Amino acid sequence: MGLVEIFALARVPSILLLGAVYGAYVLTGGVVFWKLEGNLGREDISAILARKQQVLKTYQCLNSDGMDAVIAVLQDASKAGLSIKGNQTSDGFWKFTSSAVFAATVVTTIGYGNISPKTAAGQIFCVFFALFGIPLNIVVLNRVGKYMLTIERNICDFLQGKTTHPRCSRFLVHLVSYLSGVVLFFVVPMVVFQGHEGWSYSQAIYYCFITLSTIGFGDYVADSNPEQAYPEWYSFIMASWIFFGLAWLALVINHTIDILERLHGFLNGWWRRRSGV
Amino acid sequence: MGLVEIFALARVPSILLLGAVYGAYVLTGGVVFWKLEGNLGREDISAILARKQQVLKTYQCLNSDGMDAVIAVLQDASKAGLSIKGNQTSDGFWKFTSSAVFAATVVTTIGYGNISPKTAAGQIFCVFFALFGIPLNIVVLNRVGKYMLTIERNICDFLQGKTTHPRCSRFLVHLVSYLSGVVLFFVVPMVVFQGHEGWSYSQAIYYCFITLSTIGFGDYVADSNPEQAYPEWYSFIMASWIFFGLAWLALVINHTIDILERLHGFLNGWWRRRSGV
Ligand SMILES: [K+]
Ligand SMILES: [K+]
Repeated sequence: MGLVEIFALARVPSILLLGAVYGAYVLTGGVVFWKLEGNLGREDISAILARKQQVLKTYQCLNSDGMDAVIAVLQDASKAGLSIKGNQTSDGFWKFTSSAVFAATVVTTIGYGNISPKTAAGQIFCVFFALFGIPLNIVVLNRVGKYMLTIERNICDFLQGKTTHPRCSRFLVHLVSYLSGVVLFFVVPMVVFQGHEGWSYSQAIYYCFITLSTIGFGDYVADSNPEQAYPEWYSFIMASWIFFGLAWLALVINHTIDILERLHGFLNGWWRRRSGV
Repeated sequence: MGLVEIFALARVPSILLLGAVYGAYVLTGGVVFWKLEGNLGREDISAILARKQQVLKTYQCLNSDGMDAVIAVLQDASKAGLSIKGNQTSDGFWKFTSSAVFAATVVTTIGYGNISPKTAAGQIFCVFFALFGIPLNIVVLNRVGKYMLTIERNICDFLQGKTTHPRCSRFLVHLVSYLSGVVLFFVVPMVVFQGHEGWSYSQAIYYCFITLSTIGFGDYVADSNPEQAYPEWYSFIMASWIFFGLAWLALVINHTIDILERLHGFLNGWWRRRSGV
Protein backbone atom coordinates (compact mmCIF):
# COMPACT_ATOMS: atom_id res chain seq x y z
CA MET A 1 0.00 0.00 0.00
CA GLY A 2 1.55 3.26 -1.10
CA LEU A 3 1.00 6.91 -0.25
CA VAL A 4 -1.66 7.25 -2.98
CA GLU A 5 -3.82 4.68 -1.21
CA ILE A 6 -3.16 5.92 2.33
CA PHE A 7 -4.10 9.50 1.50
CA ALA A 8 -6.96 8.26 -0.74
CA LEU A 9 -5.72 10.53 -3.52
CA ALA A 10 -8.23 9.02 -5.95
CA ARG A 11 -10.91 11.06 -4.14
CA VAL A 12 -9.02 14.32 -4.27
CA PRO A 13 -10.37 15.77 -7.59
CA SER A 14 -13.99 15.71 -6.37
CA ILE A 15 -12.99 17.46 -3.14
CA LEU A 16 -10.91 19.99 -5.05
CA LEU A 17 -13.88 20.84 -7.30
CA LEU A 18 -16.13 21.32 -4.29
CA GLY A 19 -13.41 23.38 -2.59
CA ALA A 20 -13.10 25.60 -5.67
CA VAL A 21 -16.87 26.25 -5.66
CA TYR A 22 -16.69 27.03 -1.94
CA GLY A 23 -13.69 29.35 -2.34
CA ALA A 24 -15.33 31.17 -5.25
CA TYR A 25 -18.55 31.59 -3.28
CA VAL A 26 -16.75 33.10 -0.27
CA LEU A 27 -14.60 35.42 -2.41
CA THR A 28 -17.62 36.61 -4.41
CA GLY A 29 -19.41 37.37 -1.16
CA GLY A 30 -16.34 39.24 0.02
CA VAL A 31 -16.33 41.44 -3.10
CA VAL A 32 -20.06 42.24 -2.76
CA PHE A 33 -19.72 43.19 0.93
CA TRP A 34 -16.65 45.27 0.11
CA LYS A 35 -18.55 47.23 -2.58
CA LEU A 36 -21.79 47.57 -0.57
CA GLU A 37 -20.20 48.64 2.70
CA GLY A 38 -16.96 50.26 1.54
CA ASN A 39 -18.50 53.46 0.10
CA LEU A 40 -20.67 54.09 3.11
CA GLY A 41 -17.59 53.42 5.24
CA ARG A 42 -15.59 56.20 3.58
CA GLU A 43 -18.41 58.77 3.94
CA ASP A 44 -18.91 57.78 7.57
CA ILE A 45 -15.22 58.13 8.31
CA SER A 46 -14.95 61.72 7.04
CA ALA A 47 -18.14 62.67 8.92
CA ILE A 48 -16.81 61.16 12.13
CA LEU A 49 -13.40 62.82 11.82
CA ALA A 50 -15.16 66.17 11.25
CA ARG A 51 -17.22 65.63 14.41
CA LYS A 52 -14.06 64.80 16.34
CA GLN A 53 -12.51 68.15 15.24
CA GLN A 54 -15.77 69.91 16.21
CA VAL A 55 -15.63 68.44 19.72
CA LEU A 56 -11.95 69.38 20.13
CA LYS A 57 -12.81 72.96 19.04
CA THR A 58 -15.78 73.30 21.45
CA TYR A 59 -13.87 72.03 24.49
CA GLN A 60 -10.61 73.97 24.11
CA CYS A 61 -8.89 72.47 27.16
CA LEU A 62 -9.26 69.00 25.70
CA ASN A 63 -6.05 68.23 23.82
CA SER A 64 -5.26 65.00 22.01
CA ASP A 65 -4.05 63.36 25.25
CA GLY A 66 -7.34 64.19 26.97
CA MET A 67 -9.31 62.69 24.11
CA ASP A 68 -7.27 59.48 24.38
CA ALA A 69 -7.91 59.36 28.16
CA VAL A 70 -11.69 59.64 27.64
CA ILE A 71 -11.53 56.98 24.94
CA ALA A 72 -9.58 54.60 27.20
CA VAL A 73 -12.14 55.00 30.01
CA LEU A 74 -15.02 54.43 27.61
CA GLN A 75 -13.45 51.32 26.05
CA ASP A 76 -12.89 49.73 29.46
CA ALA A 77 -16.42 50.68 30.49
CA SER A 78 -18.00 49.06 27.44
CA LYS A 79 -15.87 45.93 28.02
CA ALA A 80 -17.29 45.71 31.56
CA GLY A 81 -20.81 46.26 30.25
CA LEU A 82 -21.15 49.70 31.79
CA SER A 83 -22.86 52.67 30.22
CA ILE A 84 -21.16 55.89 31.39
CA LYS A 85 -23.25 58.17 29.20
CA GLY A 86 -25.04 60.82 31.24
CA ASN A 87 -25.11 60.34 34.99
CA GLN A 88 -26.67 56.88 35.08
CA THR A 89 -24.67 54.25 36.93
CA SER A 90 -25.64 51.00 35.26
CA ASP A 91 -25.04 47.77 37.12
CA GLY A 92 -22.85 46.05 34.56
CA PHE A 93 -23.85 42.92 32.70
CA TRP A 94 -23.51 40.01 35.07
CA LYS A 95 -26.89 39.78 36.77
CA PHE A 96 -28.48 36.33 37.10
CA THR A 97 -30.85 36.73 34.15
CA SER A 98 -28.18 38.01 31.77
CA SER A 99 -25.79 35.25 32.93
CA ALA A 100 -28.43 32.61 32.08
CA VAL A 101 -29.01 34.23 28.69
CA PHE A 102 -25.23 34.24 28.18
CA ALA A 103 -25.07 30.51 29.03
CA ALA A 104 -27.84 29.89 26.48
CA THR A 105 -25.93 31.80 23.77
CA VAL A 106 -22.90 29.57 24.53
CA VAL A 107 -24.62 26.17 24.19
CA THR A 108 -26.59 27.25 21.08
CA THR A 109 -23.29 28.62 19.60
CA ILE A 110 -25.06 31.91 18.82
CA GLY A 111 -22.44 33.74 20.90
CA TYR A 112 -23.56 37.36 20.47
CA GLY A 113 -20.52 38.46 22.43
CA ASN A 114 -22.21 41.62 23.76
CA ILE A 115 -21.16 40.15 27.10
CA SER A 116 -18.34 37.61 27.48
CA PRO A 117 -16.20 36.35 30.38
CA LYS A 118 -13.14 38.45 31.27
CA THR A 119 -11.60 36.45 34.14
CA ALA A 120 -9.31 33.49 33.38
CA ALA A 121 -11.55 31.25 35.55
CA GLY A 122 -14.66 32.35 33.64
CA GLN A 123 -12.98 31.74 30.29
CA ILE A 124 -11.77 28.25 31.19
CA PHE A 125 -15.17 27.35 32.66
CA CYS A 126 -16.75 28.61 29.44
CA VAL A 127 -14.65 26.15 27.40
CA PHE A 128 -15.72 23.12 29.47
CA PHE A 129 -19.29 24.35 29.73
CA ALA A 130 -19.48 24.54 25.91
CA LEU A 131 -17.67 21.21 25.42
CA PHE A 132 -20.63 19.31 26.91
CA GLY A 133 -23.33 21.92 26.40
CA ILE A 134 -23.08 22.16 22.59
CA PRO A 135 -23.62 18.41 21.96
CA LEU A 136 -26.43 18.37 24.57
CA ASN A 137 -28.06 21.32 22.79
CA ILE A 138 -27.80 19.56 19.40
CA VAL A 139 -29.37 16.39 20.83
CA VAL A 140 -32.26 18.34 22.40
CA LEU A 141 -32.92 20.40 19.26
CA ASN A 142 -32.78 17.29 17.04
CA ARG A 143 -35.37 15.63 19.25
CA VAL A 144 -37.63 18.70 19.19
CA GLY A 145 -37.24 18.82 15.40
CA LYS A 146 -38.18 15.13 15.10
CA TYR A 147 -41.20 15.79 17.32
CA MET A 148 -42.27 18.63 15.00
CA LEU A 149 -41.91 16.29 12.00
CA THR A 150 -43.98 13.62 13.78
CA ILE A 151 -46.80 16.09 14.39
CA GLU A 152 -46.68 17.10 10.73
CA ARG A 153 -46.77 13.43 9.60
CA ASN A 154 -49.70 12.67 11.91
CA ILE A 155 -51.66 15.60 10.50
CA CYS A 156 -50.85 14.24 7.02
CA ASP A 157 -52.11 10.75 7.97
CA PHE A 158 -55.22 12.23 9.57
CA LEU A 159 -56.09 14.25 6.45
CA GLN A 160 -55.27 11.38 4.07
CA GLY A 161 -58.00 9.31 5.71
CA LYS A 162 -60.52 12.05 4.93
CA THR A 163 -59.65 12.99 1.37
CA THR A 164 -59.69 11.37 -2.06
CA HIS A 165 -56.48 13.13 -3.22
CA PRO A 166 -53.78 11.77 -0.84
CA ARG A 167 -50.71 13.09 -2.74
CA CYS A 168 -52.23 16.53 -3.15
CA SER A 169 -53.07 16.79 0.56
CA ARG A 170 -49.55 15.63 1.54
CA PHE A 171 -48.00 18.38 -0.58
CA LEU A 172 -50.42 20.93 0.87
CA VAL A 173 -49.55 19.97 4.48
CA HIS A 174 -45.81 20.34 3.69
CA LEU A 175 -46.40 23.74 2.11
CA VAL A 176 -48.64 24.97 4.93
CA SER A 177 -46.25 23.80 7.66
CA TYR A 178 -43.28 25.42 5.87
CA LEU A 179 -45.15 28.70 5.43
CA SER A 180 -46.44 28.70 9.00
CA GLY A 181 -42.82 28.18 10.16
CA VAL A 182 -41.74 31.22 8.16
CA VAL A 183 -44.61 33.28 9.59
CA LEU A 184 -44.10 32.08 13.17
CA PHE A 185 -40.31 32.38 13.30
CA PHE A 186 -39.63 35.29 10.94
CA VAL A 187 -42.68 37.45 10.18
CA VAL A 188 -44.20 37.63 13.69
CA PRO A 189 -40.83 38.25 15.46
CA MET A 190 -39.95 40.85 12.80
CA VAL A 191 -43.11 42.82 13.63
CA VAL A 192 -42.57 42.43 17.39
CA PHE A 193 -38.91 43.54 17.25
CA GLN A 194 -39.70 46.45 14.96
CA GLY A 195 -42.22 47.66 17.56
CA HIS A 196 -40.24 47.02 20.77
CA GLU A 197 -36.60 47.56 19.81
CA GLY A 198 -36.87 50.60 17.55
CA TRP A 199 -35.37 48.81 14.55
CA SER A 200 -36.44 49.10 10.91
CA TYR A 201 -38.12 46.10 9.27
CA SER A 202 -34.95 45.17 7.37
CA GLN A 203 -32.87 45.38 10.57
CA ALA A 204 -35.42 43.20 12.38
CA ILE A 205 -35.45 40.48 9.72
CA TYR A 206 -31.63 40.63 9.57
CA TYR A 207 -31.51 40.15 13.35
CA CYS A 208 -33.98 37.21 13.19
CA PHE A 209 -31.95 35.43 10.55
CA ILE A 210 -28.53 36.15 12.08
CA THR A 211 -29.81 34.76 15.41
CA LEU A 212 -31.59 31.61 14.18
CA SER A 213 -28.73 30.70 11.83
CA THR A 214 -26.50 30.88 14.98
CA ILE A 215 -24.18 33.40 13.31
CA GLY A 216 -24.94 35.88 16.11
CA PHE A 217 -22.89 38.98 15.26
CA GLY A 218 -24.16 40.78 18.33
CA ASP A 219 -24.55 44.09 16.45
CA TYR A 220 -28.28 43.91 17.25
CA VAL A 221 -29.37 42.04 20.39
CA ALA A 222 -33.02 41.99 21.46
CA ASP A 223 -34.01 42.50 25.09
CA SER A 224 -30.72 44.20 25.95
CA ASN A 225 -31.18 47.91 25.29
CA PRO A 226 -30.97 49.66 28.69
CA GLU A 227 -32.91 52.67 27.31
CA GLN A 228 -35.91 50.51 26.34
CA ALA A 229 -38.73 49.40 28.69
CA TYR A 230 -39.71 45.81 27.86
CA PRO A 231 -43.03 44.16 28.79
CA GLU A 232 -43.07 41.28 31.30
CA TRP A 233 -43.65 38.50 28.76
CA TYR A 234 -40.83 39.68 26.50
CA SER A 235 -37.92 37.53 27.78
CA PHE A 236 -40.05 34.38 27.90
CA ILE A 237 -41.37 34.82 24.37
CA MET A 238 -37.85 35.54 23.12
CA ALA A 239 -36.40 32.38 24.71
CA SER A 240 -39.20 30.23 23.21
CA TRP A 241 -38.74 31.87 19.83
CA ILE A 242 -34.99 31.12 19.80
CA PHE A 243 -35.47 27.54 21.06
CA PHE A 244 -38.18 26.42 18.63
CA GLY A 245 -36.84 28.60 15.83
CA LEU A 246 -33.41 26.94 16.08
CA ALA A 247 -35.02 23.48 15.91
CA TRP A 248 -37.10 24.52 12.91
CA LEU A 249 -34.24 26.20 11.01
CA ALA A 250 -32.00 23.18 11.68
CA LEU A 251 -34.65 21.06 9.92
CA VAL A 252 -34.77 23.48 6.97
CA ILE A 253 -30.96 23.63 6.69
CA ASN A 254 -30.79 19.80 6.81
CA HIS A 255 -33.31 19.65 3.95
CA THR A 256 -31.20 22.12 1.95
CA ILE A 257 -28.10 19.99 2.61
CA ASP A 258 -29.95 16.89 1.35
CA ILE A 259 -30.81 18.76 -1.84
CA LEU A 260 -27.20 19.96 -2.26
CA GLU A 261 -25.82 16.43 -1.67
CA ARG A 262 -28.26 14.97 -4.23
CA LEU A 263 -27.36 17.68 -6.73
CA HIS A 264 -23.67 16.92 -6.19
CA GLY A 265 -24.28 13.17 -6.65
CA PHE A 266 -26.29 13.85 -9.78
CA LEU A 267 -23.61 16.14 -11.27
CA ASN A 268 -20.91 13.57 -10.41
CA GLY A 269 -22.86 10.79 -12.15
CA TRP A 270 -23.52 12.98 -15.17
CA TRP A 271 -19.83 13.92 -15.39
CA ARG A 272 -18.77 10.25 -15.21
CA ARG A 273 -21.25 9.18 -17.88
CA ARG A 274 -20.10 12.04 -20.11
CA SER A 275 -16.40 11.33 -19.73
CA GLY A 276 -17.08 7.61 -20.08
CA VAL A 277 -15.25 6.56 -16.89
CA MET B 1 -57.48 9.83 15.49
CA GLY B 2 -57.57 12.31 18.36
CA LEU B 3 -55.33 15.15 19.53
CA VAL B 4 -53.21 12.74 21.61
CA GLU B 5 -52.20 10.87 18.46
CA ILE B 6 -51.74 13.97 16.29
CA PHE B 7 -49.44 15.67 18.78
CA ALA B 8 -47.74 12.32 19.57
CA LEU B 9 -48.23 13.00 23.27
CA ALA B 10 -47.02 9.48 24.15
CA ARG B 11 -43.49 10.74 23.39
CA VAL B 12 -43.74 13.86 25.52
CA PRO B 13 -42.36 12.53 28.86
CA SER B 14 -39.00 11.54 27.32
CA ILE B 15 -38.69 14.98 25.71
CA LEU B 16 -39.67 16.70 28.96
CA LEU B 17 -36.97 14.79 30.86
CA LEU B 18 -34.36 15.77 28.31
CA GLY B 19 -35.65 19.35 28.37
CA ALA B 20 -35.35 19.44 32.17
CA VAL B 21 -31.72 18.25 31.99
CA TYR B 22 -31.03 20.89 29.34
CA GLY B 23 -32.71 23.66 31.34
CA ALA B 24 -30.87 22.69 34.51
CA TYR B 25 -27.56 22.63 32.64
CA VAL B 26 -28.06 26.12 31.20
CA LEU B 27 -29.25 27.60 34.52
CA THR B 28 -26.32 26.03 36.42
CA GLY B 29 -23.95 27.54 33.87
CA GLY B 30 -25.68 30.88 34.33
CA VAL B 31 -25.16 30.78 38.11
CA VAL B 32 -21.46 29.89 37.73
CA PHE B 33 -20.84 32.71 35.23
CA TRP B 34 -22.73 35.13 37.46
CA LYS B 35 -20.56 34.25 40.48
CA LEU B 36 -17.27 34.14 38.56
CA GLU B 37 -17.76 37.39 36.63
CA GLY B 38 -20.09 39.36 38.91
CA ASN B 39 -17.51 40.22 41.58
CA LEU B 40 -14.90 41.33 39.12
CA GLY B 41 -17.61 43.34 37.39
CA ARG B 42 -18.40 45.36 40.54
CA GLU B 43 -14.71 46.13 41.22
CA ASP B 44 -14.19 47.14 37.61
CA ILE B 45 -17.20 49.42 37.67
CA SER B 46 -16.04 51.44 40.68
CA ALA B 47 -12.52 51.73 39.20
CA ILE B 48 -13.93 52.95 35.89
CA LEU B 49 -16.26 55.48 37.51
CA ALA B 50 -13.30 56.80 39.55
CA ARG B 51 -11.27 57.19 36.35
CA LYS B 52 -14.16 59.05 34.72
CA GLN B 53 -14.20 61.53 37.65
CA GLN B 54 -10.41 61.87 37.34
CA VAL B 55 -10.68 62.77 33.64
CA LEU B 56 -13.46 65.31 34.33
CA LYS B 57 -11.25 66.87 37.05
CA THR B 58 -8.14 67.11 34.84
CA TYR B 59 -9.96 68.69 31.89
CA GLN B 60 -12.04 71.32 33.70
CA CYS B 61 -13.79 72.66 30.59
CA LEU B 62 -15.20 69.20 29.87
CA ASN B 63 -18.65 69.11 31.46
CA SER B 64 -21.02 66.15 31.35
CA ASP B 65 -22.39 67.22 27.94
CA GLY B 66 -18.89 67.32 26.51
CA MET B 67 -18.18 63.83 27.80
CA ASP B 68 -21.37 62.57 26.13
CA ALA B 69 -20.35 64.24 22.86
CA VAL B 70 -16.95 62.52 22.91
CA ILE B 71 -18.64 59.20 23.73
CA ALA B 72 -21.12 59.57 20.86
CA VAL B 73 -18.29 60.25 18.38
CA LEU B 74 -16.32 57.28 19.67
CA GLN B 75 -19.31 54.89 19.51
CA ASP B 76 -20.05 55.84 15.90
CA ALA B 77 -16.36 55.53 15.06
CA SER B 78 -16.09 52.03 16.49
CA LYS B 79 -19.27 51.02 14.63
CA ALA B 80 -17.64 52.16 11.38
CA GLY B 81 -14.45 50.29 12.27
CA LEU B 82 -12.41 53.43 12.79
CA SER B 83 -9.78 53.98 15.47
CA ILE B 84 -9.71 57.67 16.47
CA LYS B 85 -7.15 57.19 19.21
CA GLY B 86 -4.12 59.41 18.69
CA ASN B 87 -3.76 61.07 15.30
CA GLN B 88 -3.87 57.94 13.16
CA THR B 89 -6.56 57.92 10.48
CA SER B 90 -7.34 54.27 9.98
CA ASP B 91 -9.08 53.21 6.80
CA GLY B 92 -12.13 51.54 8.32
CA PHE B 93 -12.89 47.86 8.07
CA TRP B 94 -14.17 47.18 4.60
CA LYS B 95 -11.04 46.44 2.59
CA PHE B 96 -11.10 43.44 0.26
CA THR B 97 -9.23 41.10 2.60
CA SER B 98 -11.36 41.90 5.63
CA SER B 99 -14.53 41.60 3.51
CA ALA B 100 -13.46 38.09 2.43
CA VAL B 101 -12.70 37.17 6.06
CA PHE B 102 -16.12 38.55 7.01
CA ALA B 103 -17.78 36.40 4.31
CA ALA B 104 -15.96 33.36 5.71
CA THR B 105 -17.19 34.12 9.25
CA VAL B 106 -20.75 34.25 7.84
CA VAL B 107 -20.76 30.87 6.06
CA THR B 108 -18.98 29.10 8.94
CA THR B 109 -21.51 30.76 11.37
CA ILE B 110 -18.59 31.91 13.56
CA GLY B 111 -19.84 35.49 13.17
CA TYR B 112 -17.30 37.36 15.31
CA GLY B 113 -19.25 40.55 14.70
CA ASN B 114 -16.18 42.80 15.07
CA ILE B 115 -17.27 44.02 11.65
CA SER B 116 -20.83 43.63 10.34
CA PRO B 117 -22.88 45.23 7.54
CA LYS B 118 -24.55 48.55 8.38
CA THR B 119 -26.41 49.34 5.13
CA ALA B 120 -29.84 47.81 4.48
CA ALA B 121 -28.55 46.39 1.17
CA GLY B 122 -25.57 44.78 2.92
CA GLN B 123 -27.79 43.27 5.60
CA ILE B 124 -30.29 41.78 3.14
CA PHE B 125 -27.46 40.44 0.97
CA CYS B 126 -25.94 38.91 4.10
CA VAL B 127 -29.18 36.96 4.76
CA PHE B 128 -29.28 35.44 1.26
CA PHE B 129 -25.53 34.88 1.22
CA ALA B 130 -25.80 32.89 4.45
CA LEU B 131 -28.94 31.02 3.33
CA PHE B 132 -26.95 29.15 0.66
CA GLY B 133 -23.47 29.57 2.12
CA ILE B 134 -24.11 27.80 5.44
CA PRO B 135 -25.37 24.53 3.87
CA LEU B 136 -22.54 24.67 1.32
CA ASN B 137 -20.03 25.11 4.14
CA ILE B 138 -21.50 22.14 6.04
CA VAL B 139 -21.32 19.94 2.93
CA VAL B 140 -17.68 20.91 2.28
CA LEU B 141 -16.61 20.41 5.92
CA ASN B 142 -18.42 17.04 6.09
CA ARG B 143 -16.53 15.91 3.01
CA VAL B 144 -13.19 17.09 4.40
CA GLY B 145 -14.02 15.29 7.66
CA LYS B 146 -14.84 12.06 5.79
CA TYR B 147 -11.56 12.42 3.89
CA MET B 148 -9.67 12.75 7.20
CA LEU B 149 -11.44 9.60 8.48
CA THR B 150 -10.53 7.73 5.29
CA ILE B 151 -6.86 8.61 5.73
CA GLU B 152 -7.03 7.39 9.33
CA ARG B 153 -8.72 4.12 8.28
CA ASN B 154 -6.13 3.53 5.54
CA ILE B 155 -3.30 4.01 8.02
CA CYS B 156 -5.09 1.50 10.30
CA ASP B 157 -5.36 -1.03 7.45
CA PHE B 158 -1.75 -0.48 6.50
CA LEU B 159 -0.52 -1.09 10.05
CA GLN B 160 -2.83 -4.07 10.59
CA GLY B 161 -1.11 -5.86 7.74
CA LYS B 162 2.24 -5.42 9.51
CA THR B 163 1.39 -6.33 13.12
CA THR B 164 0.24 -9.37 15.05
CA HIS B 165 -2.00 -7.30 17.44
CA PRO B 166 -4.67 -5.80 15.12
CA ARG B 167 -7.07 -4.54 17.83
CA CYS B 168 -4.27 -2.95 19.79
CA SER B 169 -2.89 -1.14 16.74
CA ARG B 170 -6.39 0.12 15.78
CA PHE B 171 -6.85 1.65 19.23
CA LEU B 172 -3.37 3.18 19.06
CA VAL B 173 -4.08 4.80 15.68
CA HIS B 174 -7.33 6.30 17.03
CA LEU B 175 -5.53 7.65 20.09
CA VAL B 176 -2.61 9.04 18.11
CA SER B 177 -4.88 10.73 15.55
CA TYR B 178 -7.04 12.24 18.30
CA LEU B 179 -4.01 13.54 20.19
CA SER B 180 -2.38 14.89 17.03
CA GLY B 181 -5.66 16.73 16.31
CA VAL B 182 -5.55 18.34 19.75
CA VAL B 183 -1.90 19.32 19.27
CA LEU B 184 -2.39 20.61 15.71
CA PHE B 185 -5.62 22.56 16.29
CA PHE B 186 -5.24 23.70 19.92
CA VAL B 187 -1.70 23.49 21.29
CA VAL B 188 0.20 24.84 18.26
CA PRO B 189 -2.27 27.72 17.61
CA MET B 190 -2.26 28.56 21.32
CA VAL B 191 1.52 29.02 21.26
CA VAL B 192 1.37 31.00 17.98
CA PHE B 193 -1.41 33.34 19.21
CA GLN B 194 0.26 33.83 22.57
CA GLY B 195 3.37 35.00 20.71
CA HIS B 196 1.80 37.14 17.98
CA GLU B 197 -1.34 38.63 19.59
CA GLY B 198 -0.06 39.48 23.06
CA TRP B 199 -2.59 37.21 24.79
CA SER B 200 -2.01 35.00 27.82
CA TYR B 201 -2.08 31.21 27.32
CA SER B 202 -5.55 30.92 28.85
CA GLN B 203 -6.87 33.70 26.60
CA ALA B 204 -5.30 32.00 23.58
CA ILE B 205 -6.85 28.58 24.31
CA TYR B 206 -10.19 30.30 25.04
CA TYR B 207 -9.99 32.04 21.65
CA CYS B 208 -9.12 28.75 19.85
CA PHE B 209 -12.07 26.94 21.38
CA ILE B 210 -14.58 29.79 20.96
CA THR B 211 -13.58 30.03 17.28
CA LEU B 212 -13.57 26.33 16.34
CA SER B 213 -16.84 25.66 18.20
CA THR B 214 -18.29 28.47 15.99
CA ILE B 215 -19.47 30.41 19.05
CA GLY B 216 -17.31 33.35 17.98
CA PHE B 217 -17.91 36.02 20.62
CA GLY B 218 -15.55 38.40 18.86
CA ASP B 219 -14.01 39.59 22.15
CA TYR B 220 -10.68 38.26 20.89
CA VAL B 221 -10.08 38.13 17.13
CA ALA B 222 -6.74 37.06 15.71
CA ASP B 223 -5.13 38.95 12.81
CA SER B 224 -7.20 42.08 13.46
CA ASN B 225 -5.24 44.19 15.96
CA PRO B 226 -4.18 47.38 14.09
CA GLU B 227 -1.35 47.95 16.58
CA GLN B 228 0.25 44.55 15.83
CA ALA B 229 2.57 43.80 12.87
CA TYR B 230 1.74 40.33 11.51
CA PRO B 231 4.09 38.18 9.41
CA GLU B 232 3.23 37.46 5.77
CA TRP B 233 2.17 33.84 6.30
CA TYR B 234 -0.16 34.70 9.20
CA SER B 235 -3.50 35.12 7.36
CA PHE B 236 -2.97 32.00 5.27
CA ILE B 237 -2.09 29.81 8.26
CA MET B 238 -5.07 31.19 10.17
CA ALA B 239 -7.51 30.44 7.35
CA SER B 240 -6.19 26.85 7.06
CA TRP B 241 -6.34 26.41 10.82
CA ILE B 242 -10.01 27.48 10.95
CA PHE B 243 -10.98 25.39 7.90
CA PHE B 244 -9.39 22.08 8.95
CA GLY B 245 -10.03 22.73 12.63
CA LEU B 246 -13.76 23.16 12.01
CA ALA B 247 -13.87 19.90 10.06
CA TRP B 248 -11.98 18.11 12.83
CA LEU B 249 -14.05 19.55 15.71
CA ALA B 250 -17.27 18.72 13.83
CA LEU B 251 -16.09 15.08 13.79
CA VAL B 252 -15.32 15.17 17.52
CA ILE B 253 -18.69 16.81 18.36
CA ASN B 254 -20.49 14.20 16.21
CA HIS B 255 -18.73 11.44 18.17
CA THR B 256 -19.80 13.07 21.46
CA ILE B 257 -23.41 13.25 20.18
CA ASP B 258 -23.27 9.54 19.29
CA ILE B 259 -22.14 8.78 22.83
CA LEU B 260 -24.88 11.00 24.33
CA GLU B 261 -27.58 9.38 22.13
CA ARG B 262 -26.41 5.90 23.11
CA LEU B 263 -26.36 6.88 26.78
CA HIS B 264 -29.89 8.25 26.43
CA GLY B 265 -31.08 5.06 24.71
CA PHE B 266 -29.40 2.94 27.40
CA LEU B 267 -30.98 4.96 30.24
CA ASN B 268 -34.38 4.76 28.51
CA GLY B 269 -34.13 0.96 28.20
CA TRP B 270 -32.95 0.61 31.80
CA TRP B 271 -35.87 2.77 32.99
CA ARG B 272 -38.39 0.72 31.00
CA ARG B 273 -37.01 -2.60 32.29
CA ARG B 274 -37.09 -1.24 35.84
CA SER B 275 -40.63 0.10 35.67
CA GLY B 276 -41.68 -3.12 33.89
CA VAL B 277 -43.35 -1.33 30.94
K1 LIG C 1 -21.02 35.02 17.16
K1 LIG D 1 -21.76 32.17 16.27
